[in-house]
Amino acid sequence: MKFVCKKSDLVKGVNIVLKAVPSKTTMSILECILIDASTGQIKMTANDMELGIETVIEGNILEKGIVAIDAKIFSEIVRKLPDNDVTIETDASFKTKITCEKAKFDISGKSGEDFSYLPYIEKNEYISLSQFNLKEVIKQTIFSVSDNENNKIMTGELFEINGENLKVVSLDGHRVSIRNLKLKESYDPRKVIVPGKTLVEVSKILSGEMEDEVRIFFTKNHIVFEFDETVVVSRLIEGEYFRIEQMLSTDYETKVKVNKKELLNCIDRATLLIRESDKKPIIIQIGDGEMRLKLTSGVGSMNEEIVIEKEGKDILIGFNPKFLIDALRVIDDEMVTLYLVNPKAPCFIRDDQESYIYLILPVNFSSASV
Amino acid sequence: MKFVCKKSDLVKGVNIVLKAVPSKTTMSILECILIDASTGQIKMTANDMELGIETVIEGNILEKGIVAIDAKIFSEIVRKLPDNDVTIETDASFKTKITCEKAKFDISGKSGEDFSYLPYIEKNEYISLSQFNLKEVIKQTIFSVSDNENNKIMTGELFEINGENLKVVSLDGHRVSIRNLKLKESYDPRKVIVPGKTLVEVSKILSGEMEDEVRIFFTKNHIVFEFDETVVVSRLIEGEYFRIEQMLSTDYETKVKVNKKELLNCIDRATLLIRESDKKPIIIQIGDGEMRLKLTSGVGSMNEEIVIEKEGKDILIGFNPKFLIDALRVIDDEMVTLYLVNPKAPCFIRDDQESYIYLILPVNFSSASV
Repeated sequence: MKFVCKKSDLVKGVNIVLKAVPSKTTMSILECILIDASTGQIKMTANDMELGIETVIEGNILEKGIVAIDAKIFSEIVRKLPDNDVTIETDASFKTKITCEKAKFDISGKSGEDFSYLPYIEKNEYISLSQFNLKEVIKQTIFSVSDNENNKIMTGELFEINGENLKVVSLDGHRVSIRNLKLKESYDPRKVIVPGKTLVEVSKILSGEMEDEVRIFFTKNHIVFEFDETVVVSRLIEGEYFRIEQMLSTDYETKVKVNKKELLNCIDRATLLIRESDKKPIIIQIGDGEMRLKLTSGVGSMNEEIVIEKEGKDILIGFNPKFLIDALRVIDDEMVTLYLVNPKAPCFIRDDQESYIYLILPVNFSSASV
Repeated sequence: MKFVCKKSDLVKGVNIVLKAVPSKTTMSILECILIDASTGQIKMTANDMELGIETVIEGNILEKGIVAIDAKIFSEIVRKLPDNDVTIETDASFKTKITCEKAKFDISGKSGEDFSYLPYIEKNEYISLSQFNLKEVIKQTIFSVSDNENNKIMTGELFEINGENLKVVSLDGHRVSIRNLKLKESYDPRKVIVPGKTLVEVSKILSGEMEDEVRIFFTKNHIVFEFDETVVVSRLIEGEYFRIEQMLSTDYETKVKVNKKELLNCIDRATLLIRESDKKPIIIQIGDGEMRLKLTSGVGSMNEEIVIEKEGKDILIGFNPKFLIDALRVIDDEMVTLYLVNPKAPCFIRDDQESYIYLILPVNFSSASV
């Protein structure tokens, strides 16, 4: 195999497929990138068996062939090459020579025989959305995916398509994040659970541009993201997702409208008093026209008032400050509305169109800390 | 105590004195910043017994007093405050209230009775140089200070003043870095050994501006840096520094002139092939008009040629690539000159005026790896 390509293209391609190279594995072939120049194009692939990524880079193939190269070494070398044309050439024993200007590297490669290629996917049904929207919706929900592998379903996100609506849901037992997105076309109903890890990696590769499209294909066991020159194939999580509807309610006793940035900054400051080990709630006292936030820990105490618009009853309620911060950070609105029932019932942060719904469970606190 | 100051001034002051707060200590008072508003100014001090820093910030004192506050907590809080006026107020039990807009923090403080103040220094003799020059000269030598505490002297840098010349030297047993700096005035001869850690912290605080001055005072056991509103006092390392002169030689068999950036980039790339654990030399073969660099490791091999101007004999010599990189990185010249004698003798990188001299010992290598 022999081809010439630009260093920048090579680095870009390697960085994309690197997302599917496992950091730890006992199978050394999984640590490799497969470079396939056996057809008319230069295709790079990495696959950790759950998630596989393939991308095509531009270049000039001088001799067809395939090689599997250690991903980490290869990526470090290409990144440090001068900014010029790079020649990659393998011999019969898969020894790979990387040449750029006067720099010459020799590293060993493998035949790629035992490389696990991406599964063949029949691409029938797909939905289309902008890379911007997909990247945003992942950012806006991914934080409440559970990292507890004992409940596999909680480690994924629900993607539910219904007509022109895409609903994305994640939950971890303490909170639920829901985003509703309007699609440009109407599609058949479909519900899948996508691994959180896949979404994290996909969102790193997405350009995030409104004009760039991504197509999402579904099969029984897989989801495929196609965008730019890249294909990402991931297994789906099997099983039935939690019934979200029955957790949601539009009844409330207290409705609070508050400036998002003020609230976020105040809670953020309060967390300074929390040392890693202890779990201190932020206690929110909602009265007429004012919200008083208070946090007390071994380090000290803070309290702060924020001007609000209130409807309904006064309430005193405690939260894990991190959960409020996570949700508030990904809401773009200047003003947010909180709906509360009582100190034991979940708080909802949602907009009128329900483009987002964040449900957060309160925490108990001793009256002594008020 | 009660005073009002700008958040930005407070943050700046805290960041400066924080450099003298030890990360680990059994004496909790050393983890504190002393805020002294007992005279007409607001002075912050931190002191880890080796290194002490004092800085004055602007502000309006409403009630005189002193308090010692946990440095880490205080710095985290002030950093996250809104960008506005901050009021700091202590009560009789040294409980400290930090107020900024509507945010109110209460943390506990101490009287500061057992705080170790900076030693009183009689400020007679001093030298003056620009903050730029001091910052540069530290950067240009600090990397070859030894971190082996068994040889205390090697953990410091020699500052030798002789007339209008300031010579700064560091060495770690494998290499020597020397910088000569011309001072604006002539001073009495003096030799001190300054702890490397002090220089690292001082250089972080220095503005690095050519117009900003720093005054350096010496006493028998201390060095004092005075600049802007800040005073840094550090113990000196006791003992006699190594005799540098006898290590230096101007004899050579081979003289090589080479483009610094090309050489640096080439060696930098070669280090990609080195895994953390193993020590592989870069082997340099110097011939007429060309230098060939080669490195072979378990990962692979690289070789590259660079155009040079050579005088004298051909030579084949090996180096720890990191030592060459460290020296080349801090040389600003476009072209550098290497002086070599034989594969067992040190290599010198120096300019004609000897404003810098970098001595690097070669390493042995098996002829098999050539």
